[in-house]
Amino acid sequence: MVKSTPLKVALLGCGVVGSQVARLLIEQAEDLRARIGRPLELVGIAVRDLELERPGIDPALFTSDALGLASRSDVDLVIELLGGIEPARTLILAAIGAGASVVTANKALLAEDGPTIYSAAEAAGVDIYYEAAVAGAIPIVRPLRESLVGDEVTAVMGIVNGTTNFILDKMHTDGADFEVVLAEAQRLGYAEADPTADVQGYDAAAKAAILASLAFHSRVKLADVACEGITGVTGDDIAAAKEMGCVIKLLARCVLSPDGTIAVGVHPTMVPLAHPLAAIGGAFNAIFIESRNAGRLMFMGPGAGGSPTASAVLGDLVTAARNRVRGGRGPAESTYSGRGITAAGDVSSRYYVAMTVHDEPGVLAQAAATFARHGVSLQAVRQESEGEQARLGVMTHLALHRQVAEAIDELDAMPEVATGISLMRVEGA
Amino acid sequence: MVKSTPLKVALLGCGVVGSQVARLLIEQAEDLRARIGRPLELVGIAVRDLELERPGIDPALFTSDALGLASRSDVDLVIELLGGIEPARTLILAAIGAGASVVTANKALLAEDGPTIYSAAEAAGVDIYYEAAVAGAIPIVRPLRESLVGDEVTAVMGIVNGTTNFILDKMHTDGADFEVVLAEAQRLGYAEADPTADVQGYDAAAKAAILASLAFHSRVKLADVACEGITGVTGDDIAAAKEMGCVIKLLARCVLSPDGTIAVGVHPTMVPLAHPLAAIGGAFNAIFIESRNAGRLMFMGPGAGGSPTASAVLGDLVTAARNRVRGGRGPAESTYSGRGITAAGDVSSRYYVAMTVHDEPGVLAQAAATFARHGVSLQAVRQESEGEQARLGVMTHLALHRQVAEAIDELDAMPEVATGISLMRVEGA
Repeated sequence: MVKSTPLKVALLGCGVVGSQVARLLIEQAEDLRARIGRPLELVGIAVRDLELERPGIDPALFTSDALGLASRSDVDLVIELLGGIEPARTLILAAIGAGASVVTANKALLAEDGPTIYSAAEAAGVDIYYEAAVAGAIPIVRPLRESLVGDEVTAVMGIVNGTTNFILDKMHTDGADFEVVLAEAQRLGYAEADPTADVQGYDAAAKAAILASLAFHSRVKLADVACEGITGVTGDDIAAAKEMGCVIKLLARCVLSPDGTIAVGVHPTMVPLAHPLAAIGGAFNAIFIESRNAGRLMFMGPGAGGSPTASAVLGDLVTAARNRVRGGRGPAESTYSGRGITAAGDVSSRYYVAMTVHDEPGVLAQAAATFARHGVSLQAVRQESEGEQARLGVMTHLALHRQVAEAIDELDAMPEVATGISLMRVEGA
Repeated sequence: MVKSTPLKVALLGCGVVGSQVARLLIEQAEDLRARIGRPLELVGIAVRDLELERPGIDPALFTSDALGLASRSDVDLVIELLGGIEPARTLILAAIGAGASVVTANKALLAEDGPTIYSAAEAAGVDIYYEAAVAGAIPIVRPLRESLVGDEVTAVMGIVNGTTNFILDKMHTDGADFEVVLAEAQRLGYAEADPTADVQGYDAAAKAAILASLAFHSRVKLADVACEGITGVTGDDIAAAKEMGCVIKLLARCVLSPDGTIAVGVHPTMVPLAHPLAAIGGAFNAIFIESRNAGRLMFMGPGAGGSPTASAVLGDLVTAARNRVRGGRGPAESTYSGRGITAAGDVSSRYYVAMTVHDEPGVLAQAAATFARHGVSLQAVRQESEGEQARLGVMTHLALHRQVAEAIDELDAMPEVATGISLMRVEGA
């Protein structure tokens, strides 16, 4: 039974994603109406620049008064696609205050101050959906909030930034250095003019905070996420990874530690070729989940782009609209477990440690003894002479970061060690 | 805010999945209570054999009166894990009639007579959830019903039967014949004593009907699914696939045809090694989705087994329970598009055609001319002499099944063709 009174939709932001959402709301109007049970009516689009040409969208819809649009009491659904903390937060809170349900793709805001938004939505009895905030069109928020809600998730990790995945991919295939590949990625439009948020890992860290919150029913904020970008990844690292049967990926990793705290970080990580995440190339994203009963699941697809992100936004919009039509609401924030964050030194992982040593008898034995003294057992060792020096690479079994760091400090002070020591995490058991 | 009045749960069936669900309801009671906002209370388990030992479950819960349990007016949620058409249908309808929401893993019933169940649930204002009916713990029903509901899905295809995937895998790696590998799979517990439903493709066909219904907002029933099992796959087929850079997978394939009808079938299919589905090995399942805006997505994980299936059942149970607590309901059946089924002859695919011919001049030219006459263009041809005969293998570009079948009929009548002609679908563009 399709009723004819439309649900009113306001759109905040009309960039790559917003303009695609606006076009799809018009093009797919009949399908959306049938799926919701009532038509949607786009009543306004808030933009900064009213003069910009936006073909295919009725110019009468545009307004520069974002707060006025978000606060309209007759609007049922508000889509926020501005990004950033302000004015997005103020506008979302205004929309919630006026009784609208909100769909957003704003990972930065949710990772920084999600609880303020969630609490306001709960108090007002409206929905907040944000599937598009993590991994574009790949359904991951809904599977964690709903499909796996009867299970115990023990780890969520993934490749959630396409720009860095593209760059690391090229470094592997071309053997080229980071700066060279970054310049090419910028030329091809895979990296932005200011690539900081991507290459320093901040974008992935915001997504990790959201994933960890959902997976472990806790509040994890951006500041809780240990964050390391890919700017320090060298050609030597890539070569070492190849030798160890791995590729280097920028992994967002959220894992339940043995003491019940949450280890959450973004790091360049060696991933063994046999691991499903190793094969995720180019601008693709993938999320890997381990849970007590479901076992190991993986979801992959395009992690960014106007159309994929618009697909995720519209999926949320239809869900929120159906709730208006059929009554009821989507799931609220779930933080009952109140888990803390694992201290940096207590993060358990495998690690790869590389250093250049003077090629003298007994150096390897000393290095091995140093690791052993700190309780770190070794899974693989590679030593290769280069004239009077040798490259020494060591892959550990599972160890605490503190143990490995202490061993490195000691090694660093040894006269036999010629250069600074590099450290990288290794995924997989 | 957690209220203390429990929601009452009745469980129908206590086999591998049911006993795991019962145990998890007890073990995870505190987590489930926190996630739902009210505790769950398991009030009864209907079983056929009351005498059977079921360790870890309170014997007082068991009853042989399934209808009495399903019809209890104080029960909020009924989990149906009996499988098969009857008595499952009668019990589910009784539960709905008594006002309970229903969670089921019953693919056979939903593929055969889902609309009767969905209509009853809609009329009674209760939920029907069935994530566990397709691909075990892999979230796929919810992504199709909710995440992608704002998009236009154009194809859903997947490996949805672990037994046949295990058998085909072994045939590839060992070069062994179907019967030999089947016997081994039965010995290892990967195939049942009566493997008919798996190896004939009926299990996959039921899942294909459910996936097609969801993806295309139509009613697709088991009888609509063209179904071909793997019993006819030979060592020659495997060798031909390898030569073409493919592996053979039993694919459930639901595709929107150019005329707007739905092509839905289960067939042994050559999948190019570069396709993400080619790498899915052993008892794993994977579903590949193509949609207009989201692009290409893939979901993979364990497709069967007690714990993974129990995870999917509990995810649905928590969602249905939350709806009771927060008000509202999940999405209903969506059939507004009313699409028909593509006629067998109109199914568009790539095909691989193999035959043995007398090794005489001009045979290849005649075969090629026959395909051309029926509008079938060829992408690759392999011919290999074997004494006085030659093996001829032909991979077509996209063609209609009717065109290829007509060409085969004509070739079959040619004196130069020595043996029966084999035909297999090929996935990918």
